[in-house]
Amino acid sequence: MLKNIHKSIDEIYPEMVEIRRYLHQYPELSFQETKTAKYIADYYEQLEIPYEANIGGNGVIATLKGGKPGKTVALRADFDGLPIQDEKDVPYKSKFPGIMHACGHDGHTATLLTLAKVMKEYQDELEGTIVFLHQHAEEYAPGGAKPMIESGALKNVDAVFGNHLWATLPVGVLQTSKSVMMAGADRFELTIQGQGGHGAYPQETKDAIVIASEVVSQLQQIVSRRLDPLKTAVITIGMFEAGNAFNIIADRAKLTGTVRHMDVDVQEIIIEEMEKIVKGICISNDAAYTFDYVKGYPPLMNHPEEAEIVLKASKNIVEIHKAEETLPYMAGEDFAYYTMEKPGAFFFTGANKKGNPYPHHHPKFDIDEKSLPIAAKTLIGAYFGYQRS
Amino acid sequence: MLKNIHKSIDEIYPEMVEIRRYLHQYPELSFQETKTAKYIADYYEQLEIPYEANIGGNGVIATLKGGKPGKTVALRADFDGLPIQDEKDVPYKSKFPGIMHACGHDGHTATLLTLAKVMKEYQDELEGTIVFLHQHAEEYAPGGAKPMIESGALKNVDAVFGNHLWATLPVGVLQTSKSVMMAGADRFELTIQGQGGHGAYPQETKDAIVIASEVVSQLQQIVSRRLDPLKTAVITIGMFEAGNAFNIIADRAKLTGTVRHMDVDVQEIIIEEMEKIVKGICISNDAAYTFDYVKGYPPLMNHPEEAEIVLKASKNIVEIHKAEETLPYMAGEDFAYYTMEKPGAFFFTGANKKGNPYPHHHPKFDIDEKSLPIAAKTLIGAYFGYQRS
Amino acid sequence: MLKNIHKSIDEIYPEMVEIRRYLHQYPELSFQETKTAKYIADYYEQLEIPYEANIGGNGVIATLKGGKPGKTVALRADFDGLPIQDEKDVPYKSKFPGIMHACGHDGHTATLLTLAKVMKEYQDELEGTIVFLHQHAEEYAPGGAKPMIESGALKNVDAVFGNHLWATLPVGVLQTSKSVMMAGADRFELTIQGQGGHGAYPQETKDAIVIASEVVSQLQQIVSRRLDPLKTAVITIGMFEAGNAFNIIADRAKLTGTVRHMDVDVQEIIIEEMEKIVKGICISNDAAYTFDYVKGYPPLMNHPEEAEIVLKASKNIVEIHKAEETLPYMAGEDFAYYTMEKPGAFFFTGANKKGNPYPHHHPKFDIDEKSLPIAAKTLIGAYFGYQRS
Amino acid sequence: MLKNIHKSIDEIYPEMVEIRRYLHQYPELSFQETKTAKYIADYYEQLEIPYEANIGGNGVIATLKGGKPGKTVALRADFDGLPIQDEKDVPYKSKFPGIMHACGHDGHTATLLTLAKVMKEYQDELEGTIVFLHQHAEEYAPGGAKPMIESGALKNVDAVFGNHLWATLPVGVLQTSKSVMMAGADRFELTIQGQGGHGAYPQETKDAIVIASEVVSQLQQIVSRRLDPLKTAVITIGMFEAGNAFNIIADRAKLTGTVRHMDVDVQEIIIEEMEKIVKGICISNDAAYTFDYVKGYPPLMNHPEEAEIVLKASKNIVEIHKAEETLPYMAGEDFAYYTMEKPGAFFFTGANKKGNPYPHHHPKFDIDEKSLPIAAKTLIGAYFGYQRS
Repeated sequence: MLKNIHKSIDEIYPEMVEIRRYLHQYPELSFQETKTAKYIADYYEQLEIPYEANIGGNGVIATLKGGKPGKTVALRADFDGLPIQDEKDVPYKSKFPGIMHACGHDGHTATLLTLAKVMKEYQDELEGTIVFLHQHAEEYAPGGAKPMIESGALKNVDAVFGNHLWATLPVGVLQTSKSVMMAGADRFELTIQGQGGHGAYPQETKDAIVIASEVVSQLQQIVSRRLDPLKTAVITIGMFEAGNAFNIIADRAKLTGTVRHMDVDVQEIIIEEMEKIVKGICISNDAAYTFDYVKGYPPLMNHPEEAEIVLKASKNIVEIHKAEETLPYMAGEDFAYYTMEKPGAFFFTGANKKGNPYPHHHPKFDIDEKSLPIAAKTLIGAYFGYQRS
Repeated sequence: MLKNIHKSIDEIYPEMVEIRRYLHQYPELSFQETKTAKYIADYYEQLEIPYEANIGGNGVIATLKGGKPGKTVALRADFDGLPIQDEKDVPYKSKFPGIMHACGHDGHTATLLTLAKVMKEYQDELEGTIVFLHQHAEEYAPGGAKPMIESGALKNVDAVFGNHLWATLPVGVLQTSKSVMMAGADRFELTIQGQGGHGAYPQETKDAIVIASEVVSQLQQIVSRRLDPLKTAVITIGMFEAGNAFNIIADRAKLTGTVRHMDVDVQEIIIEEMEKIVKGICISNDAAYTFDYVKGYPPLMNHPEEAEIVLKASKNIVEIHKAEETLPYMAGEDFAYYTMEKPGAFFFTGANKKGNPYPHHHPKFDIDEKSLPIAAKTLIGAYFGYQRS
Repeated sequence: MLKNIHKSIDEIYPEMVEIRRYLHQYPELSFQETKTAKYIADYYEQLEIPYEANIGGNGVIATLKGGKPGKTVALRADFDGLPIQDEKDVPYKSKFPGIMHACGHDGHTATLLTLAKVMKEYQDELEGTIVFLHQHAEEYAPGGAKPMIESGALKNVDAVFGNHLWATLPVGVLQTSKSVMMAGADRFELTIQGQGGHGAYPQETKDAIVIASEVVSQLQQIVSRRLDPLKTAVITIGMFEAGNAFNIIADRAKLTGTVRHMDVDVQEIIIEEMEKIVKGICISNDAAYTFDYVKGYPPLMNHPEEAEIVLKASKNIVEIHKAEETLPYMAGEDFAYYTMEKPGAFFFTGANKKGNPYPHHHPKFDIDEKSLPIAAKTLIGAYFGYQRS
Repeated sequence: MLKNIHKSIDEIYPEMVEIRRYLHQYPELSFQETKTAKYIADYYEQLEIPYEANIGGNGVIATLKGGKPGKTVALRADFDGLPIQDEKDVPYKSKFPGIMHACGHDGHTATLLTLAKVMKEYQDELEGTIVFLHQHAEEYAPGGAKPMIESGALKNVDAVFGNHLWATLPVGVLQTSKSVMMAGADRFELTIQGQGGHGAYPQETKDAIVIASEVVSQLQQIVSRRLDPLKTAVITIGMFEAGNAFNIIADRAKLTGTVRHMDVDVQEIIIEEMEKIVKGICISNDAAYTFDYVKGYPPLMNHPEEAEIVLKASKNIVEIHKAEETLPYMAGEDFAYYTMEKPGAFFFTGANKKGNPYPHHHPKFDIDEKSLPIAAKTLIGAYFGYQRS
């Protein structure tokens, strides 16, 4: 059957590309992707595969029950875009100013929809049940995965697999991991409240820029001195905003940043030490602060058995010439919530477009669409692998 | 004659107030104060005192040649406003959004215009020549004083006096100095050019926020370690701007600030040490920088004899109950250029409005208008004092 | 045969303890351990096992050629002490003031010597050759392993195994690793040369304490910002020495420290970035510096097959109730040089003495001597395992 | 009479030099200068001038009551040495290892003793009373001046004058001040108590070197940001001591330093801000601290009238070719206590020895002895000047 499925996937490739390009032209921001959701739902409507829409927001779940008994496996694709201006010069360029599919979610969706169409043909001979899990809002924490799970998306599901097209990996390469696949990614905002005043009279002020600079400097010590050197963590301050005039001492400075980590204990230490540092520096300077720390997606932990299933599945796919385990990626991914609930694995499908060196989230990001059928074959391969496990 | 002049000044007080309030409602920004200049010129036109407009920009100079021989003394008033929104609740509130006379220059102008009107009456008996020097653009370096001098404003002038209404001094107090009256005030802009990147991969970037924070911290050492402790200097960074997203490492950080100093040697050391610090830190971080340092007004040095003339003049003014020497003010003032060319002195006339604690450049700044005739009397008193010196 | 050997090891336990306690009382510092070397040589002399002394310094190598053909396997024990004052209250306390076996090398030596005595009995039936490798100077880089190898210690050797008694692991626990077992450990010395002077005239000086403090602070950024977050590194400044009088600005500051890393690429980046930081800060401060970086032992990489052999060997030892893979230890160990040359594995034998919580290098360090026969059984087990591999 | 006195001073010059060189060879440390005190007392014994010894410690006070009525004026000379090794190559080099007259107090004493011998000749014709105030322990706070005053040294004294030979001023130059002559000089010790540990496991420690470096860095902000820029202050950390081994994280760091200031309000702000900074940083790091701040000598304030008397006196001394007012020196001097009690002035007598550029407290410090009679003439000139005031 697998050979035939692969052949069907190859045959549906033009539609895959068409859907991907259509979605590429009409991207929608996280939590606002209602038209994309409707597009997905309509597709299943036409396929006569039963589905539910508005799951935990804009999520759509379609269920293809095979003719033979077996396990229930969810395959997930996310479908939101990003607040980035498309700067590519291609016919399928985004038609919405300032919004763009700069992360490949259009491809994920096209892959999963056409895979559903293919598998519909094999419904009778199919063992088990495929859950097509179309998730909204992956790009913006708290994300769509969590509310979808809370709305029952994983009820009755035995395992879950997810694909990410990856623009900086060559086509034909697959990566997965048997432990941490992607980092936890949090967001924080620190506001230092000093006391402003005339630039010539510092003694009457509490200089928020000097205080916040000290905070930036001392925060470096968390990674360098306060965490186990064998643990991984990044604390980045992405924005430093303070002051309105060159000759007025700023009363307030805002530091906004992100934390990446590989386990929740490290996350807790970081939060505690950040607060300790800021508190102490503010006492040193007689200043005040607010500290908002928004926990983002937890680290994405693959299950080793399911990762092994993906690696094995890749061996049956002729287009894949290299399948390897990878060190963790430092980016966040809310697929993490699925593997906290159920066995599962996430994998990267190489999608580098020749001559296009731009990474994810870049205004000129693009993918080689030949990666789409490879992803489809890997997803369905993992499905079959899991049935046999 | 002085007694009569004082009486005349008292009598013209209502017009003084009227002019000040008119100007207060129609403030203009530095270098754009053409209507105010026209207002001033028209006033002299009506007084039939010869004047020249467009001196070094929008400057206006009127000359009242007395009937008797004597020295030529310039009295200076500046007339530009500030980019501040007037938040006072008074009938004469600024009618121009975002522009305000928040430094008293309206009062300076009203004082000098009405003093001219008074002195016109005494022209025949007057010894020497009064130069009414109406200067534009004091608030924004390089200022109006320099181009006015370059256009000949001080040609034939023997000495120059200037008044500043000072909102935080009580009415009836006068301050001047026999040496440094006001600090040198410069502006600088430092741009750190690092290399941006994904917030999770610091090793591929040069984090401009971390680098610039280090710069802020190290710049503190110039005052604390590299200058003679007996010398005075302030280095303030008023703005720190860096980064556009919480999870992207900033490639560039901009620090904008001001330096205050009391002598040019210190200024030179500061510039040199600032550059040395930034250069070294950029080498430490493999980053680049630009450093623009705009020398502002030099320190305002009063001449001791002319300051003494002001102090003596104040003794003849019944409203002044305290005349004192002051330590330098840290603010800058382009009156500095006049005393670099000619003997002269600058003084502060107490103008605190009861119940209004707001300092200069504050959105609720105001003055007690009773300070205007006191300033007029001091200016003309200095004129007479200088004639006798 | 293994059962009998285990029995023989149990029977020789009193001598094992006696030797260990004798050595404990007469510790010698690295590179000065001539009497210990003589003690070891004499022991082999008496056993009539051929040996060579003065290998690469004070090293001693004895060779027991079995009666049957097989591979040659080296078992290594180090034998130097530490410059620490023994503060234990035990009869076998160090008799040499300021010198102490605070790392268990006495136990390593006693284990290997008595194992040799036991194996001498089995010489005829023995397959292959055992090389008893007694290494001097493990505690002080550049260490004894390197010169011993250069003197031919591993010539003809097929594999090498080494044991470390570990005081913070319970007796009965064994740890090894299939990759990095112990970190690379380097030493550095940074001297900042400023310009001293009177404490009241900082402007005439270059304050070495302020400069060096800046260096300490900026060095934190190497780990936090300049290394791959997935890589492990520690930069510790253990000593900061500067100044001779409270009121004299110090002309020189000395920072002495250590770097730990897991791979040589990271080590190179660290050295380069340290120099870059110091250079830049010295430029910022018009100061000079010297930077001596002494590369210590490289990271100890176990070979996965030999580690597996150790783990399997432990299954035949009744006293070992837990054998596990460990994350890398951050300490350095010159056993690293052996596994760079030959297949091999290093392992930790739990040696915690009940009620004694003190770690290695502590003045009250001690071990539970029951760990010695366990180590002997693991070493000989690995020997046999390797013969069969 | 003055002319004759000047002549007598010139004649006694050889004895002046002899005494100075004798004292130079036998220096004693502060509070231990008993032999020097005995030497002084014996001298007055021989002169038959009444004196009291052991005043407030090792102080000696002799009183020469003139034959005519007048005011009582104290002339002060200090007589302690310093813990510095004499490295000069001269016949009168210090005979005591590690102790040296490196500040000129030997010269002060020789000047005052021989001046007493001279004035004894003029006793009958003398108006008023001369108090020869020989003070111990100027070099080490809390100093000898305070206990001498508490023991009545200034009782009945109307005014007090003091001389300091100054090695970096040319002979023939005199300096004094009409306000602050010398700074307040304090001593402090900061101990940071972190938690030590193995250099490879920073996360289990609180790194005292990193914490203390942060303290050094942040203390810079007191002068740069928290004090009135018009005020003068220096905070110097002269010693940074931490750590015993390159690979052990230090548990404790000791910072020892000095503060110089010109008024007591600034001193109070500095103490408060230092404590605030250290406290906050320790909170940031979960560390503890101790902070000992020993207030040293207060700023030395000359009285303007007495300073004027000194300046006038200098005009009658042919050797003085320049007498000038000076900015404050940043060094401390416990003469400050005298002028807090009584009118008085301190002055510097130029004493630069040709070819010897070494400043006070330098191992090669020396003076030109021709400065001694100049100092004697100035002291007695001030005495006479005060009588006439």
